[in-house]
Amino acid sequence: MERLLDNLSIDLPSWAFGNSGTRFKVFPASGTPRTVEEKIADAAAVHRLTGLAPTVALHIPWDTVADYRALGTYAEDLGIGLGTINSNTFQDEDYKFGSLTNVEKKVRQKAIDHHLECIEVMNVTGSRDLKIWLADGTNYPGQGDIRWRQDRLSESLATIYQHIGADQRLVLEYKFFEPAMYMTDVPDWGSAYVHVAALGERAVVCLDTGHHAPGTNIEFIVAQLLRLRKLGSFDFNSRFYADDDLIVGAADPFQLFRILFEVIRGGGLAPDSGVALMLDQCHNIEAKIPGQIRSVLNVQEMTARAALVDTEAMAVAQESGDVLGANAVFMDAFYTDVRPRLARWRADRGLPEDPMAAFARSGYQRQIDAERCGGTQSGWGA
Amino acid sequence: MERLLDNLSIDLPSWAFGNSGTRFKVFPASGTPRTVEEKIADAAAVHRLTGLAPTVALHIPWDTVADYRALGTYAEDLGIGLGTINSNTFQDEDYKFGSLTNVEKKVRQKAIDHHLECIEVMNVTGSRDLKIWLADGTNYPGQGDIRWRQDRLSESLATIYQHIGADQRLVLEYKFFEPAMYMTDVPDWGSAYVHVAALGERAVVCLDTGHHAPGTNIEFIVAQLLRLRKLGSFDFNSRFYADDDLIVGAADPFQLFRILFEVIRGGGLAPDSGVALMLDQCHNIEAKIPGQIRSVLNVQEMTARAALVDTEAMAVAQESGDVLGANAVFMDAFYTDVRPRLARWRADRGLPEDPMAAFARSGYQRQIDAERCGGTQSGWGA
Amino acid sequence: MERLLDNLSIDLPSWAFGNSGTRFKVFPASGTPRTVEEKIADAAAVHRLTGLAPTVALHIPWDTVADYRALGTYAEDLGIGLGTINSNTFQDEDYKFGSLTNVEKKVRQKAIDHHLECIEVMNVTGSRDLKIWLADGTNYPGQGDIRWRQDRLSESLATIYQHIGADQRLVLEYKFFEPAMYMTDVPDWGSAYVHVAALGERAVVCLDTGHHAPGTNIEFIVAQLLRLRKLGSFDFNSRFYADDDLIVGAADPFQLFRILFEVIRGGGLAPDSGVALMLDQCHNIEAKIPGQIRSVLNVQEMTARAALVDTEAMAVAQESGDVLGANAVFMDAFYTDVRPRLARWRADRGLPEDPMAAFARSGYQRQIDAERCGGTQSGWGA
Amino acid sequence: MERLLDNLSIDLPSWAFGNSGTRFKVFPASGTPRTVEEKIADAAAVHRLTGLAPTVALHIPWDTVADYRALGTYAEDLGIGLGTINSNTFQDEDYKFGSLTNVEKKVRQKAIDHHLECIEVMNVTGSRDLKIWLADGTNYPGQGDIRWRQDRLSESLATIYQHIGADQRLVLEYKFFEPAMYMTDVPDWGSAYVHVAALGERAVVCLDTGHHAPGTNIEFIVAQLLRLRKLGSFDFNSRFYADDDLIVGAADPFQLFRILFEVIRGGGLAPDSGVALMLDQCHNIEAKIPGQIRSVLNVQEMTARAALVDTEAMAVAQESGDVLGANAVFMDAFYTDVRPRLARWRADRGLPEDPMAAFARSGYQRQIDAERCGGTQSGWGA
Repeated sequence: MERLLDNLSIDLPSWAFGNSGTRFKVFPASGTPRTVEEKIADAAAVHRLTGLAPTVALHIPWDTVADYRALGTYAEDLGIGLGTINSNTFQDEDYKFGSLTNVEKKVRQKAIDHHLECIEVMNVTGSRDLKIWLADGTNYPGQGDIRWRQDRLSESLATIYQHIGADQRLVLEYKFFEPAMYMTDVPDWGSAYVHVAALGERAVVCLDTGHHAPGTNIEFIVAQLLRLRKLGSFDFNSRFYADDDLIVGAADPFQLFRILFEVIRGGGLAPDSGVALMLDQCHNIEAKIPGQIRSVLNVQEMTARAALVDTEAMAVAQESGDVLGANAVFMDAFYTDVRPRLARWRADRGLPEDPMAAFARSGYQRQIDAERCGGTQSGWGA
Repeated sequence: MERLLDNLSIDLPSWAFGNSGTRFKVFPASGTPRTVEEKIADAAAVHRLTGLAPTVALHIPWDTVADYRALGTYAEDLGIGLGTINSNTFQDEDYKFGSLTNVEKKVRQKAIDHHLECIEVMNVTGSRDLKIWLADGTNYPGQGDIRWRQDRLSESLATIYQHIGADQRLVLEYKFFEPAMYMTDVPDWGSAYVHVAALGERAVVCLDTGHHAPGTNIEFIVAQLLRLRKLGSFDFNSRFYADDDLIVGAADPFQLFRILFEVIRGGGLAPDSGVALMLDQCHNIEAKIPGQIRSVLNVQEMTARAALVDTEAMAVAQESGDVLGANAVFMDAFYTDVRPRLARWRADRGLPEDPMAAFARSGYQRQIDAERCGGTQSGWGA
Repeated sequence: MERLLDNLSIDLPSWAFGNSGTRFKVFPASGTPRTVEEKIADAAAVHRLTGLAPTVALHIPWDTVADYRALGTYAEDLGIGLGTINSNTFQDEDYKFGSLTNVEKKVRQKAIDHHLECIEVMNVTGSRDLKIWLADGTNYPGQGDIRWRQDRLSESLATIYQHIGADQRLVLEYKFFEPAMYMTDVPDWGSAYVHVAALGERAVVCLDTGHHAPGTNIEFIVAQLLRLRKLGSFDFNSRFYADDDLIVGAADPFQLFRILFEVIRGGGLAPDSGVALMLDQCHNIEAKIPGQIRSVLNVQEMTARAALVDTEAMAVAQESGDVLGANAVFMDAFYTDVRPRLARWRADRGLPEDPMAAFARSGYQRQIDAERCGGTQSGWGA
Repeated sequence: MERLLDNLSIDLPSWAFGNSGTRFKVFPASGTPRTVEEKIADAAAVHRLTGLAPTVALHIPWDTVADYRALGTYAEDLGIGLGTINSNTFQDEDYKFGSLTNVEKKVRQKAIDHHLECIEVMNVTGSRDLKIWLADGTNYPGQGDIRWRQDRLSESLATIYQHIGADQRLVLEYKFFEPAMYMTDVPDWGSAYVHVAALGERAVVCLDTGHHAPGTNIEFIVAQLLRLRKLGSFDFNSRFYADDDLIVGAADPFQLFRILFEVIRGGGLAPDSGVALMLDQCHNIEAKIPGQIRSVLNVQEMTARAALVDTEAMAVAQESGDVLGANAVFMDAFYTDVRPRLARWRADRGLPEDPMAAFARSGYQRQIDAERCGGTQSGWGA
């Protein structure tokens, strides 16, 4: 188990440190970063205390800077690296009716060009992954031609893919709904899969745990995509209803356990697996840095429990049709309290045994509350 | 049927004319009102063309003015009246952790006081209904005490109710989720019902058609609340997924038909029924004034179809266990094209036969696009 | 915690020991009881090993016998008692279109009479609760008159309630859907509540954990019904999709924990609470007696975890708006492995530390496999 | 439109004429067929009155006969043909834990062999399609190895596919859940697609309209599968909740309209499209033959409405970002009452204008009620 944990490496989203909210209200918080550098500093604080988050993902244009090399050096000095580059094609007026699927060629080209710029950024930061989440879709039946849009999407992605470097990947994310309320152009893993399969080897799927219909068996999709060698990354979060973007593991820890069991089962935690773990959450009302610490700890804790499953004993039960026996082996791992072992794992690596308490003691929050006065707090859109 | 249609009167929400969007983006539109007066003017345009929307509902504080009497006169001069008053307890920093259910007495009192101010407004505008939709709830298990919050909600509502005038009503709205992502303090009709039943006769329930769990049989709730004499009002809209706030009837016209059938069945369109019909939608990407026109026409059209149900023939089939026969009578009304009759109904009343076309021809949109330059466009929050 | 556990007492459903399945197939199992006596023997075996299930609920007419007094003595000799009486109004041809809501007065009367017979049984068995779950509903819009059926339901229940003894209770269960596919006459807790509130003090609601719309916050309903003093009983089971009737706690142990936390919070485990805990599950493919043992252990385990919540620390965090702190207190209890303490609790009471292993060792299954040859295995319908 | 309608040809399921029900109860009906010949006679009656259902699908072994050639002649004499062959791997004890994915090689082989026998039947009947719906799945986490089962499924299907003739097709159906309650081995279109894509050109997907998660945009899947040239067939029915198997179009006629619009849009009604339309429903409480008549009429009616969409006008609106305009064109077609035109279409072809009334008048039901006495009524399982 401990060996597996040493492979665990989680990409933090820079935007998790900025303000976020619902359509009803964005509540500001003291200490919120005003610049990408401040976001990186916060991400570095999470990694210092947990040893789990060595990279921070950027969102373009929210995190646009003049000199990405300097930004990389800045991050490195703080002990972390720059991770996945996330594009944004949903906050420009031009994208009101879609980006890569827009009826206007001019707008599609603009969206393609934005991705090419993101690849330029990746070339400097050394990021491997270009993550594409599209808000494209329609709100009313008849508003758009579903089939035509699929064909345009296919073309646009192909053009972007031509610019993806030999060591880079195009990672396509799917989402059930929102902001589109009737039809979303990449609504399910099947659609993401057929597009990346058509593109080629360096195109893979991103599975956001909050982007499914009610009741969807997510661990099945994990197993299936791993089988197809197309599971590129996770956007971790949790939800009770829709894309609630709560802390991963908060809503249904057993589901997170099951997902991580399939990740391990399918080799997704092997060093060369190509499966990137990332958070994508919103800390609307809770403290942001502790929220990220809690999140990476939750992933670690459920990974540890999943690693405890006695797969041999389970296989024996499975083969004999012992439904309750097989389930019991599975549950036994889930019900085991791994926290003492994880505290030791941390202590062995010079990390605080209780990162949440360590952060509270550290005075970091008080410091940023004091320092980050004036300026404009970061949020979705800046 | 035509007689029933003459009873149809729909309250338009002032905020439908302002900008709205999702948490990802609010797209501005040309011609968007900057003031409550401009919203009222747009609402009056809808009524002029349809004869269906004689009142406009206000949202406090979005529509706060110094002189509500003058505002009433302004509306009257445009041919409409002021309708339901909607309170807002979700956009102030103080309400981050709840309003009427907040753990801090001070905040609860502030929220109560806001409602008393709303009642003051009602006393001037002559509005009958104070509509209360609460964003109160929690995002994480353990964050709040569910039971304690119910008790505080009960107390806060009782205090507000004491100030409701003899000809006024407190209308409590429920919602399945959003913005709260784990627990909502008034999540279902049952909860709204038990609170208004405890308050007294002048407290009733508001049913928003988008505020239910997937698969909920909404017409059953309509029938049940009418039976209990507690159906106070509708917030009409439609949805495919969550609270999508699409145009009423757009996602599932047959559902709207079934709802309106139960409204008629339960006496909800009788002049003294006490059932207020209101829209509550967001026109995020579609034209706002035509969006409202389309909405009231959809309600009218499905009311007309529902009124065509041959209830005697249906009762005969029901009594003989003729499932398909009873369903056929029901569907026959739904499948009948009432648009020609509605065009005549409009012509008979001096209204344009095709209100959508009439609006397009009217030049109104061009006029407001030109006039409403400068200033700040209205939206959620202003 | 241990004190609370001593209050835990779970009613086992006799039918859980019989065969069950889906509409596609009922798989028979060896050792399945052929008589109610054999079902009671199996239930007694569960209690002997767990100390948690001192009563067995009967289903009339599946468990009809000539002499209920003798049946009670038989159960007593095996160390358990007879519990809740469940009526059945869904397996007779007459009930094709409803029972207590049927359009035919004759059928309604037949269904009422069946309940009066159940009360006669209760008078002999000494059972407190008459549980009424209705399959009543319609499959097609227009098939039945929703409002009329509510009124008939109200009348029928009132007639039954008149016969409920001073120490007896009428317990009304609600269900979202199935077998009715369009409209169910008691679809939600609100409807069950309004009916039992109209009946009187000895009428209460039964909450089956599998009978809700996707995403429903069940612990909220628990808190609300306890607040209203109308939570009469639970039908425990779990589900991923619909009314899957899986082993309680199997699909989402954290949800079961949250539910039991609210039960404790609202006084539902106090000796005089009036909240009855019952299982209602189907062991379609898993071993039946071990399935019941696992189920009562799951309820016990999550009760134990819920009892560990440091409610004072949680209240402090709640009052200071410390979302993550309050959640952490809550989760800390859930993540604590209580199994060693529960093993001790059992040892202290002369019970096997591991009831599942003890059952496997006991030879009971081998014995019934051998003995129960010939005859007709029990199932839904006999 | 009328030309398109002439292409409409719907395969009736033989089992729709037998008894069906829920796990709670199967209500028998008078006149229910006892033999496959009687089922075919009923199917022929539907075709005689509607001109829409020239073939009847068989289910093996429910419809097993000694001489399929004779059966084909029998059907032909009644004016219809034999259609799709449906396999059954869910009603044998051996399949308790799966068929093509069973852990036991012996059981997998048995399930494979059953399909080879079905192909033998097809070779005699001349049926093109072998439809495979699998009940395979698990009820509890840990019960089975998700990944291993996918691999076995892949192998088993490959073996079957080797025997599929040059003019035959393997049609793989997916289903969200039921009877498996935790994990289903072919749960979504994506999984069905990757399997049939791996098999080859003569393997395609069957889309059952009731087999999706709540809120799923089915018409999107239709468009996507048509784009991928893998939409093999439909199993039509409708649902409010789960796989309710109600009459197609009954629950949401607008959804059926949208689905059929995409079928037409993607060329699915062209003579060589390879898209087979089939019903798969249960008439649990309604009359079976009229239920099938109503169903094919519903498909025809919504096809007619979908064919009325002015796609050119809609494209113009779509291209100009006129959301409401494009939607209005779409809705105009849906709201148009096509029933008079369809009555004429029927009259022109020598069919009764009102097939439901014609059936009622025909005396057919009275005749089979009288004739079909004694014997065992057909149902699921026989």
